Amino acid sequence: MQVDVIASIGEARSDDFVHKTVIVIDVLRATSTLMTALANGCGGVIPVETVQQAKQLQEPGDLLGGERFCKKISGFDLGNSPFEYLNRELAGRRLIMTTTNGTRGIQKSRKASHVLAGALLNGTACAKAAAGFHRDVLILCAGTQDAFSWEDGLCAGMLVENIMRLTGESAAEVNDFGLAMLAGFRHVKHDLESALLSCANGKRLSKMGFRDDVCYCARTDVIDVVPVLKDGMMVPLSQ
Amino acid sequence: MQVDVIASIGEARSDDFVHKTVIVIDVLRATSTLMTALANGCGGVIPVETVQQAKQLQEPGDLLGGERFCKKISGFDLGNSPFEYLNRELAGRRLIMTTTNGTRGIQKSRKASHVLAGALLNGTACAKAAAGFHRDVLILCAGTQDAFSWEDGLCAGMLVENIMRLTGESAAEVNDFGLAMLAGFRHVKHDLESALLSCANGKRLSKMGFRDDVCYCARTDVIDVVPVLKDGMMVPLSQ
Repeated sequence: MQVDVIASIGEARSDDFVHKTVIVIDVLRATSTLMTALANGCGGVIPVETVQQAKQLQEPGDLLGGERFCKKISGFDLGNSPFEYLNRELAGRRLIMTTTNGTRGIQKSRKASHVLAGALLNGTACAKAAAGFHRDVLILCAGTQDAFSWEDGLCAGMLVENIMRLTGESAAEVNDFGLAMLAGFRHVKHDLESALLSCANGKRLSKMGFRDDVCYCARTDVIDVVPVLKDGMMVPLSQ
Repeated sequence: MQVDVIASIGEARSDDFVHKTVIVIDVLRATSTLMTALANGCGGVIPVETVQQAKQLQEPGDLLGGERFCKKISGFDLGNSPFEYLNRELAGRRLIMTTTNGTRGIQKSRKASHVLAGALLNGTACAKAAAGFHRDVLILCAGTQDAFSWEDGLCAGMLVENIMRLTGESAAEVNDFGLAMLAGFRHVKHDLESALLSCANGKRLSKMGFRDDVCYCARTDVIDVVPVLKDGMMVPLSQ
């Protein structure tokens, strides 16, 4: 099984995704928030690229969520902080979500056989789901405006470690970027909170008052929901 | 001091280099070989992009060196194996060198204030030289045909570690990609040979009979020469 990690959305070409299982990662904060919503009973998350698309798709009962420049979008119900999604009002309702990087990554992956959302929060469950599809895996770090983000790389390293454990080290062929993320994750995995607080997005969010979001997203394996794309909507993968 | 690591030549824009100290890394094998030549008395290395440019520049006494697809170029005196450059015939002679990635990286860096060549072989000396220029540092991993190469990332991590040590941790602002390479380097630094043998270029070179080259290039701090670009030629930096 080939396991490739890609550093940012700009480096990914849609045709690379064909016949593969793609895991989209945007640890701070889109995929962390998305799986928090599903774990709290949200009926499904529709990722869209633009604010206009979100508004056009909205039907009665749907919630609009997302951010631009880390802030809630004017007229939307919810922003991009996972703490806004620990909420009973979500139960059974659809969420239409647009963020700068994470939802773009999901959109770009549509040609894949399976599209999953990964974060540190569901790392082991997500790796297990991906290994279970028995296809080559492409791990797409969403990054920030086409630049690499360390928190996404750390999650990629966690996924590579778990996929290798599940398939057997000799069965997984990992690209050079994946080997780098694996080594980096192994070096800091016992203090992921510090690592996330010291990277560019962690610093930016902390300055804007979202330090608790960063600490929340630095936790591993506290959510067992694996979001999967089905008919344009991210829903929990059936175990 | 800002210290940024860039993953491959394709991601670098020449204008990013202005007013900065650039360190070009192509561990397997261009920069390792280049500094081996200078350490063995070569008078200077002129990096060029094409075979034709190399031939046009050649004057009596000059040697032609380099590779395409890991192999010596037809009609050239030397290939790209460092072992070919442990040679007294080099003494005082100019070497005109063209390789697929490393020399391209040097060419692309010409707008920088200082252009140095780095490898594991001269890692500490190179970091010391870069810190001594008191300018922002841009570390350019040459990579392989615009894809990231782990051996270059490891060297970048070594350089970041040493620059941070020399300038003080709080004085160096490191980009996310640099933080990732630093963590990865720290995880495997006690067995760099295994790391280099397991990355894509290490495997490819080993299969082609160049395993000894990989092991040679995995050693740290055995060369104290820091190649610097001066009037289009890489020469040893005066201590």
